[in-house]
Amino acid sequence: MSAAVNERAAQPRSSRGGGPVVAMVGAGQLARMTHQASIGLGVTLRVLATSEQDSAVRVGAEHLLGSPDSLEDLRRLAAGADVVTFDHEGIPPEALETLEREGVRLAPGPAAKLLAQDKAHARRTLAELGLPVPPFALAHTREEADAFAGEHSWPLVGKAPRGGYDGNGVFVLPDADAAAARLEQHPDGLLLEPHLAIERELAVLVARSSVGERVVYPVVETVQADAMCREILAPAPVGADLAQQAREIALTIAEAIDATGIMAVELFHTPDGLLINELALRPHNSGHYTIEGCESSQFEQHLRAVLGWPLGRPDLRAPAVATVNIIGPADGSDPHDRVPAALAVPGAHVHLYGKDARPGRKLGHVTVCADDAETARAAARLAAQRLEGRSA
Amino acid sequence: MSAAVNERAAQPRSSRGGGPVVAMVGAGQLARMTHQASIGLGVTLRVLATSEQDSAVRVGAEHLLGSPDSLEDLRRLAAGADVVTFDHEGIPPEALETLEREGVRLAPGPAAKLLAQDKAHARRTLAELGLPVPPFALAHTREEADAFAGEHSWPLVGKAPRGGYDGNGVFVLPDADAAAARLEQHPDGLLLEPHLAIERELAVLVARSSVGERVVYPVVETVQADAMCREILAPAPVGADLAQQAREIALTIAEAIDATGIMAVELFHTPDGLLINELALRPHNSGHYTIEGCESSQFEQHLRAVLGWPLGRPDLRAPAVATVNIIGPADGSDPHDRVPAALAVPGAHVHLYGKDARPGRKLGHVTVCADDAETARAAARLAAQRLEGRSA
Repeated sequence: MSAAVNERAAQPRSSRGGGPVVAMVGAGQLARMTHQASIGLGVTLRVLATSEQDSAVRVGAEHLLGSPDSLEDLRRLAAGADVVTFDHEGIPPEALETLEREGVRLAPGPAAKLLAQDKAHARRTLAELGLPVPPFALAHTREEADAFAGEHSWPLVGKAPRGGYDGNGVFVLPDADAAAARLEQHPDGLLLEPHLAIERELAVLVARSSVGERVVYPVVETVQADAMCREILAPAPVGADLAQQAREIALTIAEAIDATGIMAVELFHTPDGLLINELALRPHNSGHYTIEGCESSQFEQHLRAVLGWPLGRPDLRAPAVATVNIIGPADGSDPHDRVPAALAVPGAHVHLYGKDARPGRKLGHVTVCADDAETARAAARLAAQRLEGRSA
Repeated sequence: MSAAVNERAAQPRSSRGGGPVVAMVGAGQLARMTHQASIGLGVTLRVLATSEQDSAVRVGAEHLLGSPDSLEDLRRLAAGADVVTFDHEGIPPEALETLEREGVRLAPGPAAKLLAQDKAHARRTLAELGLPVPPFALAHTREEADAFAGEHSWPLVGKAPRGGYDGNGVFVLPDADAAAARLEQHPDGLLLEPHLAIERELAVLVARSSVGERVVYPVVETVQADAMCREILAPAPVGADLAQQAREIALTIAEAIDATGIMAVELFHTPDGLLINELALRPHNSGHYTIEGCESSQFEQHLRAVLGWPLGRPDLRAPAVATVNIIGPADGSDPHDRVPAALAVPGAHVHLYGKDARPGRKLGHVTVCADDAETARAAARLAAQRLEGRSA
């Protein structure tokens, strides 16, 4: 992709005020909400966007047009910035290593980021740390898949080690034929795991600053539908011991891998206890509830952490917080037209991402804080249904 | 002033997403924080800025360069917008009347806005409504001032009916000579009032939507220093009866004058009870505490109100909320460099306005929510002191 320098970004740093410049690779909704959080802090967020229509560009984040695959574009993004961070995983790890060698301050660094970019690498690393992960194997052949199934029985779950998101790249494999067919499409192999009996999916955010300060957020439950996160409930309806265990796992990982910024740890709660599913080293969908739900949002916290600034309190601001994602409806209609109906739901906080409405696309979320989980969830669901044009 | 159309503003409306466009005359900190609030709602805020360095432009609000004194610039701002609103009072009332005649939707309308633009007009209108205002007279001559002092005794307070802000245009008049000297500088007259014994200054926000829905916020105490608001404490430490009286006054005014959007009512609490000081028909410094302190911030509420959308809850989110303004220090140093020190104060929420640091200029504010007023105020003061570079 050819890259054009945006005029604003080419202006001297002072054009946006006297604070630091945080560069972010990517300009989607995470960058958009990080820009929103940067305003009060006097921080300038400069994003690498692939289009003027990107979510963060539409709300005025300083931007460069370019590709995360281009080392040259990444260099231009980093020029004059205090630190470079990310709103997605899709940056070639080799490019990050090159930038680091060239003296660019990356947060997180390439080694830590790789744990979010390569699921197989993450499983191996976490297992070596003695942390609880599902049984796994990286299989390249039908025979390897069959051998793993011999230990754990069909069906298995296969995951593309790199490039998956929102259920893309995750496959249920009923038998050896299915595994063989998928492996043909994935010459680099598939990460296999048993089809686990999962009671609940949980997530925990940790913020770790570039000077080593850490805070951990409450444990939340994430509810999936169609392989996409639909709801987040904070706090998760689990016992205090389990919650504490999840938080300790997250803190241990953050320290062990030298995470910087927000890190999200997704966990399975199974009959055998907690198992770590995936890591994200960036603000995360499971943390959108923090904007209204916590004393410090994950977006402000990420900026503070990557700049080495003191971190904010992660405390919940209400007994219960529910966030429901807004998914583009099948008829392609635009939630923007239905915002007033959603705002008529008492306590509904609407966040649209400014993306063109397409069926199945994550277009925004609604958060409600309440005195109990049922009230919060019912109100957030109602507002989200209205935004999606579904009858409640 | 010559006006140039910003390229972004000239793009078709869809370039920022599918929501409505709210145009705002002015691009200062109120517009900046309104832009921040517009992001989640999918609303595009388009501001009329006098410079690329204006506070709201620096964080990427869509903008036109022009002057609020130019009818042509105001027309260009309004073109294609759903509604036009304001971040200050400095627009010629005649221009607003012309725009309204031309079919532009103004929120508030010119007649309501005039109550914030002309202090003498406001006093007369409120007195006619039977609402409590201080004794007043609009004086043009020494003799008129002397006559008013005969009823109320020197010293008096004189106020320029139009164009004052932050204590500019407010004068203590010790005697007739002083009054005569000030009157010479103000050929349109001065609004005179007695030098009142004030126990406390209070403020109340009302939001009234373009379809008539109203919500009223908690009553707050505003603490002035050097004729500038320094601190806001919510809730105000006054009895429930007095608070209820203040809220009823505000609601009565909003309805009587057909206010649209946020309206702030400043009140004096005197030994004789509540007296109305001034009105602002826009988001207001006394409402900055609502960003973290209330379920719905005044900025989001203003957008919802001017668009005729359902209003949000105004409830306090903590037992006590304190906001302390950050004033440019005498040495001209920049608070941006001191943000980390302020963030080290537990619970401190920092809001910088991206303005160049000049002594005495309002550069930002800090808000702290806490379980009691003393804790909130002490923490907010400490963080503000650090931002101003004062030893605590």
